[in-house]
Amino acid sequence: MARVGIYGATGYTGYELIKLLVRHPQVEIGFATARSAVGKRLSDIFPTLIDTPLVAVEEANLQDVDLIFTCLPHNTPDLIPLVQQALEAGKRVIDFSDTFRLHDADDYERRRGKPHPAPELLSAAVYGLPELHRTAIREARLVANTGCYPLTAILPLWPLVQADLFTDRTVIVDSKSGVSGAGRSLSLKTHFGETHETFSAYNVGRVHRHLGEMEQETGLHIIFSPHLLPVYRGILSTIYVTLKPGTSPEMVHEAYNVFRDEPFITVLPTGHFPELRHVQQTMDFILGFQPVEIEAGRMIIVSALDNLLKGASGQAVQCMNLMLGIEETAGLK
Amino acid sequence: MARVGIYGATGYTGYELIKLLVRHPQVEIGFATARSAVGKRLSDIFPTLIDTPLVAVEEANLQDVDLIFTCLPHNTPDLIPLVQQALEAGKRVIDFSDTFRLHDADDYERRRGKPHPAPELLSAAVYGLPELHRTAIREARLVANTGCYPLTAILPLWPLVQADLFTDRTVIVDSKSGVSGAGRSLSLKTHFGETHETFSAYNVGRVHRHLGEMEQETGLHIIFSPHLLPVYRGILSTIYVTLKPGTSPEMVHEAYNVFRDEPFITVLPTGHFPELRHVQQTMDFILGFQPVEIEAGRMIIVSALDNLLKGASGQAVQCMNLMLGIEETAGLK
Amino acid sequence: MARVGIYGATGYTGYELIKLLVRHPQVEIGFATARSAVGKRLSDIFPTLIDTPLVAVEEANLQDVDLIFTCLPHNTPDLIPLVQQALEAGKRVIDFSDTFRLHDADDYERRRGKPHPAPELLSAAVYGLPELHRTAIREARLVANTGCYPLTAILPLWPLVQADLFTDRTVIVDSKSGVSGAGRSLSLKTHFGETHETFSAYNVGRVHRHLGEMEQETGLHIIFSPHLLPVYRGILSTIYVTLKPGTSPEMVHEAYNVFRDEPFITVLPTGHFPELRHVQQTMDFILGFQPVEIEAGRMIIVSALDNLLKGASGQAVQCMNLMLGIEETAGLK
Amino acid sequence: MARVGIYGATGYTGYELIKLLVRHPQVEIGFATARSAVGKRLSDIFPTLIDTPLVAVEEANLQDVDLIFTCLPHNTPDLIPLVQQALEAGKRVIDFSDTFRLHDADDYERRRGKPHPAPELLSAAVYGLPELHRTAIREARLVANTGCYPLTAILPLWPLVQADLFTDRTVIVDSKSGVSGAGRSLSLKTHFGETHETFSAYNVGRVHRHLGEMEQETGLHIIFSPHLLPVYRGILSTIYVTLKPGTSPEMVHEAYNVFRDEPFITVLPTGHFPELRHVQQTMDFILGFQPVEIEAGRMIIVSALDNLLKGASGQAVQCMNLMLGIEETAGLK
Repeated sequence: MARVGIYGATGYTGYELIKLLVRHPQVEIGFATARSAVGKRLSDIFPTLIDTPLVAVEEANLQDVDLIFTCLPHNTPDLIPLVQQALEAGKRVIDFSDTFRLHDADDYERRRGKPHPAPELLSAAVYGLPELHRTAIREARLVANTGCYPLTAILPLWPLVQADLFTDRTVIVDSKSGVSGAGRSLSLKTHFGETHETFSAYNVGRVHRHLGEMEQETGLHIIFSPHLLPVYRGILSTIYVTLKPGTSPEMVHEAYNVFRDEPFITVLPTGHFPELRHVQQTMDFILGFQPVEIEAGRMIIVSALDNLLKGASGQAVQCMNLMLGIEETAGLK
Repeated sequence: MARVGIYGATGYTGYELIKLLVRHPQVEIGFATARSAVGKRLSDIFPTLIDTPLVAVEEANLQDVDLIFTCLPHNTPDLIPLVQQALEAGKRVIDFSDTFRLHDADDYERRRGKPHPAPELLSAAVYGLPELHRTAIREARLVANTGCYPLTAILPLWPLVQADLFTDRTVIVDSKSGVSGAGRSLSLKTHFGETHETFSAYNVGRVHRHLGEMEQETGLHIIFSPHLLPVYRGILSTIYVTLKPGTSPEMVHEAYNVFRDEPFITVLPTGHFPELRHVQQTMDFILGFQPVEIEAGRMIIVSALDNLLKGASGQAVQCMNLMLGIEETAGLK
Repeated sequence: MARVGIYGATGYTGYELIKLLVRHPQVEIGFATARSAVGKRLSDIFPTLIDTPLVAVEEANLQDVDLIFTCLPHNTPDLIPLVQQALEAGKRVIDFSDTFRLHDADDYERRRGKPHPAPELLSAAVYGLPELHRTAIREARLVANTGCYPLTAILPLWPLVQADLFTDRTVIVDSKSGVSGAGRSLSLKTHFGETHETFSAYNVGRVHRHLGEMEQETGLHIIFSPHLLPVYRGILSTIYVTLKPGTSPEMVHEAYNVFRDEPFITVLPTGHFPELRHVQQTMDFILGFQPVEIEAGRMIIVSALDNLLKGASGQAVQCMNLMLGIEETAGLK
Repeated sequence: MARVGIYGATGYTGYELIKLLVRHPQVEIGFATARSAVGKRLSDIFPTLIDTPLVAVEEANLQDVDLIFTCLPHNTPDLIPLVQQALEAGKRVIDFSDTFRLHDADDYERRRGKPHPAPELLSAAVYGLPELHRTAIREARLVANTGCYPLTAILPLWPLVQADLFTDRTVIVDSKSGVSGAGRSLSLKTHFGETHETFSAYNVGRVHRHLGEMEQETGLHIIFSPHLLPVYRGILSTIYVTLKPGTSPEMVHEAYNVFRDEPFITVLPTGHFPELRHVQQTMDFILGFQPVEIEAGRMIIVSALDNLLKGASGQAVQCMNLMLGIEETAGLK
């Protein structure tokens, strides 16, 4: 029985992670930390019967675990020391932030406007997307768990890049996300009265912090517009590509054939599309496509996932399984 | 006091129309027909204090009114005879269906796969978009009320066409509509359990019945993906255009200057976008834009309207005001 | 491996039942019928990966199964012959309708205003509430699966009756149900536009068809007001009782102690209440209570369940497990 | 043209108030204060075209206005000095908090557990319910605007008390409120993820701060359970009363006849009930009732209002109209 620790158990991703881990047949939770809820139990914070005690970061016993998850808010100053300390203690780390997702410190600095806080860790980190980097994840000391938005673009686009089907390398990704993507922190953006019965775009164009991951993993040039849905879970992205003239649906299915043995990816028949409810509360990543004008190579792809599972905590468990040599789908079916 | 008649008062658009007309200072309702509710009053069908009696089509007294609205479902066989009869009686007509929106019978046949049922009416009809065809609407005998989706594309794109700003004439329109767009008929698509807490794409590509209007009015080539939001009212469209290299925000604002005196159109400052709640229950059409890569001419436009008001019944009242020589905004502020 | 058949697989309860059965470790589906979807597979109707074929009633092979579920709409004329035929063939039956829930044909006739269609079956049927009738269910040939609303009243009230705590035997039950309680049939009541962002009462007073079950099982006199929530799953009932003067919280907890070994019932500490999200998608029945004026015996109880699981299909599986001699919670945890 | 000032313009009630006042034909806004938004305009805070500037409390020029509205959070320490200062300057005051709603300082202290902060003001204040206290409001210097929950109980119950129809003076009020009742402050209770697709009870029994108003105005003994709906606007209350045996629907309608000239109250025919959507965005208060057992005097009443309009800001404008000698419904139709 492997043992794991969780730093940051009371955000949405930490909570989802714990829900998966308590049911996992081959893993036990060694500790779970929570800044504002020390001394409480997880069931005091969330409506759940899961009775995990919450401790302060200082009380977490690193020696007691094999692997840690860091589920802290983006830009927490504590993150780098926590990760360094764990790695030095010989523990493996899966980090949920966007700190270690880009391989290149220069790329990071150019996109963020400030130097990377720990470039030496950056070069060691593996991007935690099993469908693309399964072998590297197995051996990794530090895995950067994927962003939820980027996944909806990377998984449908990467096979088409591999199959060399692109002519125009500029791709439009129009994404629509449920509110849980914004986390559990209080903000007007997640206030019921500001979100319910409305719909809006934000960070339109090329300014979203997750753009870097998409471009790194696909090598494409992405125009990205995220939108906020009055729905709790799930992201659906509508993707507009221009492929080589004459690219047929069969050629596209042939490219997606690289996913044929993937346990969590479903490619629908031509002209069928996923809906959010097909993926909510599941690990399933579903994509469908429709050629628009074959002679012009125009195609529309629709992809969908549950942002808290395949887009965050479930993805982290999939990586953990690989790292610990456990069956990849354990605790996820 | 002008008098008007409504054919088809118990669909969502007919109901919204009546709500506007009963408050209109210069118009009275002569009759309102309803196939399935003859002998009832509107207040028996809708939760309202509006006490309009409902009569059968045969009981409607055409002589009693100056203008009629036909708010019948698309493809109702009764429509053509009703419109012909009214025109022959010297009455003016505003039709809510998509029967008379295309000018060209060949274009209609090519897009629909069947001949137009009354080509002689088609050539006389005016597309009911005051911002583009105000003068023609004033004189028109037959006005084809605009579709709700098309408006979200035509109004933002037409000024850019007028200003000759396009290079690539292919435009991507990613639209998200509330459920009321599907009307009040019962279907699984509008069942709470199939719509609530989910999100989906439908009719993706170049197959939607409203594509023709968009292309006719703008002269552009449109890739259009509609989506269904778990929201009642409103449409928000995210539009991706490629303009001439170097097109600046100022040049775009200059183009939109044609709307400066329009009573219902608001162009936001660069980088600001409308949300659905800004337009719900109003006649306002709001648009905003963001240049993405100025050197490449890439720009994203977001537009929003209330599909039942500016997108349907309010638009019809605006046209009626023009046709009757009344102040254009009467009953709409 | 026991084998079961389902009549009526395409309503919400039939669908939920099949989702439970395909994951059940000790049961296999022999057949699933669907009037309007013969020749299709369940995955053609519902967004699911469950690939059960759907057959006509006539094609269902009764000999192939040990037990059948009848998930037909209330008042289907086919029901009685189907049940009789199955019983005569020595098969056991769990029926989802409200046909067999009252023990007494006279009570049925008085409440429904018409004679019971098969009084001889009525007297043999067992009310399918394991917490009250576990032993009888084990042996039953015909089980009447419980109504969802009644459960929210019966389970909190029955222990207080057993403990002889009532003075005033009139009890007020104010219930609020999600839309899925109305089934998958199309009606304006379940149309998104008529349900979303609103709230209403219906069948107020003593007229609801489910009142008989509540009164039969508790022996109390119930005033019942159901309401429709803009939520998909779950029922929450607020119950107002007048107990013997001086009844303390301890005495109430003592009464609820009869549920201490029940796998699916949770009684919260005094002053704590369930929320719908605590029970959605689960078999949990949660109740909490608050004394209001102890000297006057006034108390408020709040109970909640998922109407499709503990309130319908999960309950049926719990009964099936008892009837087949399987572990009671198999397939339900 | 009368002039008014608003203290606290950026909460939901302040915002709704301003929306009403800018359209009011006989009133102008002199100033609007906002602690956290000084120097901004209202349109910077809310999605609106209303361009009211926001000033600090110190900048508000009391001399410039005839009447002030205080829309501050409950228990703001600034409230008492602000009110005293305005009254001393000869200005009239409508306060939105629950500070001045009870007439009796002892009652206040007993219910709140602390002495009233300004008993001398308490005795001068008039409870701002026009239907009960129209004459007193006309003359009042200080009006305590009513609570939203209390109104849903007081208006249906008071006529029955006047008509002496009660035997059992204990009444059960089961209320369901939209989220806007909790205001615009950020709290987990109004976080989309904690409110959406769920339903819960809170402050059950006799502990809610609004109980005092209900009991003061009706003289009845109220058992009150508020619940939180996943809806934005509106409160619907289901009220259970025991009247004199044999009380007929006609006798109840006779009692409600006191409201026959009220501009904002509708009493539905026996057996009809309001829904939230009937009252949302309106000043209408709608009630319906259903006798349950006439011989036992049991009756169920359902009432509904928009908590931000008739339940708060619209009610304040109705009081203002009375105080300023303007037509009572001005700006409210």
